Amino acid sequence: MIRVGINGYGTIGKRVADAVRAQPDMTVRGVAKRSPDYVAVGAAEADYPVYAADEDRADGFREIGIDLAGTADDLVAESDVIVDATPSGVGAENRPLYERHDTPAIFQGGEDATVAEVSFNARANFAEAEDADYARVVSCNTTGLSRFLAPLHETYGIDKARVTLVRRGGDPDQTGRGPINDTVPDPVSIPSHHGPDVQTVFPELDIDTIGLKVPTTMMHVHAVNVTLEDDPDGVDDVRDLFRAEDRLLTIPEYAGIDGAGTLKDFAMDAGRPRGDIWENCIWGESITLQGRDLYCMQAIHQEADVVPENVDAIRALTGLLDGPESRSLTNETLGIDLGRLCGRENLTAEQRPTERVSSDD
Amino acid sequence: MIRVGINGYGTIGKRVADAVRAQPDMTVRGVAKRSPDYVAVGAAEADYPVYAADEDRADGFREIGIDLAGTADDLVAESDVIVDATPSGVGAENRPLYERHDTPAIFQGGEDATVAEVSFNARANFAEAEDADYARVVSCNTTGLSRFLAPLHETYGIDKARVTLVRRGGDPDQTGRGPINDTVPDPVSIPSHHGPDVQTVFPELDIDTIGLKVPTTMMHVHAVNVTLEDDPDGVDDVRDLFRAEDRLLTIPEYAGIDGAGTLKDFAMDAGRPRGDIWENCIWGESITLQGRDLYCMQAIHQEADVVPENVDAIRALTGLLDGPESRSLTNETLGIDLGRLCGRENLTAEQRPTERVSSDD
Repeated sequence: MIRVGINGYGTIGKRVADAVRAQPDMTVRGVAKRSPDYVAVGAAEADYPVYAADEDRADGFREIGIDLAGTADDLVAESDVIVDATPSGVGAENRPLYERHDTPAIFQGGEDATVAEVSFNARANFAEAEDADYARVVSCNTTGLSRFLAPLHETYGIDKARVTLVRRGGDPDQTGRGPINDTVPDPVSIPSHHGPDVQTVFPELDIDTIGLKVPTTMMHVHAVNVTLEDDPDGVDDVRDLFRAEDRLLTIPEYAGIDGAGTLKDFAMDAGRPRGDIWENCIWGESITLQGRDLYCMQAIHQEADVVPENVDAIRALTGLLDGPESRSLTNETLGIDLGRLCGRENLTAEQRPTERVSSDD
Repeated sequence: MIRVGINGYGTIGKRVADAVRAQPDMTVRGVAKRSPDYVAVGAAEADYPVYAADEDRADGFREIGIDLAGTADDLVAESDVIVDATPSGVGAENRPLYERHDTPAIFQGGEDATVAEVSFNARANFAEAEDADYARVVSCNTTGLSRFLAPLHETYGIDKARVTLVRRGGDPDQTGRGPINDTVPDPVSIPSHHGPDVQTVFPELDIDTIGLKVPTTMMHVHAVNVTLEDDPDGVDDVRDLFRAEDRLLTIPEYAGIDGAGTLKDFAMDAGRPRGDIWENCIWGESITLQGRDLYCMQAIHQEADVVPENVDAIRALTGLLDGPESRSLTNETLGIDLGRLCGRENLTAEQRPTERVSSDD
């Protein structure tokens, strides 16, 4: 059993902890956290050993009745591998700690690519992390793009990709984030950093990206154009390609899923923990071919899509399983199967939902 | 076992179905639905017998592979009691159907109070529904106010209540609702209909309400003033009164829960199905006394707070249990216990959360 330490227990860290716990070949050694808030209480209630980020912060945890197992330094010493889910930039500051304990570590996409030897996506380049001590799971957006581009790259070849990323302003719990009433070019320079970030996974890929931010908290949405090298044999050929991918969900028209809100509602109905959507969600009706130009729109759940990637990265670094084996086990243990519900293809009607009820007033 | 039919399987209906299923003394006979969309697929996947709203709509369900158990008319005939969770106004149209089958029915707060003999809140007037054939579970906002006012009314007496309801614009799946960038007096006339609706539960209560709508989808928030008849013995007296209530959650300061987003995140972490918050959520720091004037702010999850009330209403109409027994059983089976997590009172620090991480870019 690989002992996994989670350093940083926020949006990503708490989800990775739960995902690691669900695996048969690894265990959560503990979680390190800075703030003694409701999330810390949740960690204690979930029976994760809680470590304070440092000794100065320990009293706050004790005051709310959380017994500490030690500090982050202790956690690193006691773990076989660390998942660093601290805020952007803090991971790089933590790397010397991991080196001092000779503990392999996985960083998140908010870090600069130089933080680790390899920028990782389970679908695209699992094997490259097998000899590494440090890997960076690329960001939610880059993860979504890597999964989407990999099968196109392998099957048709990619002449050029152009993507507009309409990004959510903050996560649901980030009360202080904006914008609140604007569509903000962010970054205003083109290409945005997302294109070069995709190139950390696909070094030869020609891709330009434009980034904006909007006042939503639910999901990012990508408007994608890929100029292919070879002509697909019609849109159905592309749909079939996507359907064969385990972490691409094609939303059928009948479902009445018309935005990120309904997508999240669908995930809630399916019993997903925290309503998490680990898959890319591609609107089936949007998949369009104009010659070699492929277009579509996909939604990316920024809190969730990197979670299975972190689990797979643990296996890559520690040599537990190879890529296909790891992805398959991760999918099975987490229940990555929304496509099963959404994939009811024996339909001809193009019905839109008309029924909505809530106790409104 | 009481056989419960759910007519209308939207935001409220699907939650009531799951709550009924969790009870030891009742069973879901089936759910009737209009649209063959992702919510219908969810009902079939949850193994609820699915009934089409009427025969004209049956083909759409069959086309997506849902085997129908019949129509809504059949469901009413086969049920001991109906929970009508159809859109506002449709419930009243359905009442003749329930009368024809001599089936008791529970309506939602979107209906006019005249739809049923009694407007119901489990905390305030359970017993009044015990002799009724038809009851209306009051709306999410009226439910939240009834729970809040009942203990104050009983303990101190209420001279007058004044409430501003800052209402969410729509539910997360209601893509077409507004406002998108406004704070809308809604209704612009004062008092809003909420005050008179509270009076359907507390006929003698003096209450005025003002309603507005804002561009959020997560929760309603009430700014409450109650002028009490008797002086409480300080704020702690009021806090203790609230803490003794099973469906009032007092949010402690240490938790760092600063809005509806963090509240929902907290509920997700606690493993609540669909992130549902069945309790009123009162910010502890906001509880303030100025003489006999009590002030505070509370959040109400519009998708969820009426769900346990529907379960209790079933027991009231069918005579299964009395009020305290029913509320207790409903709380236990659903797991209404967020106060256990939030109630860690052995603390002195007033810490705010500083840690937030997500794979942002």
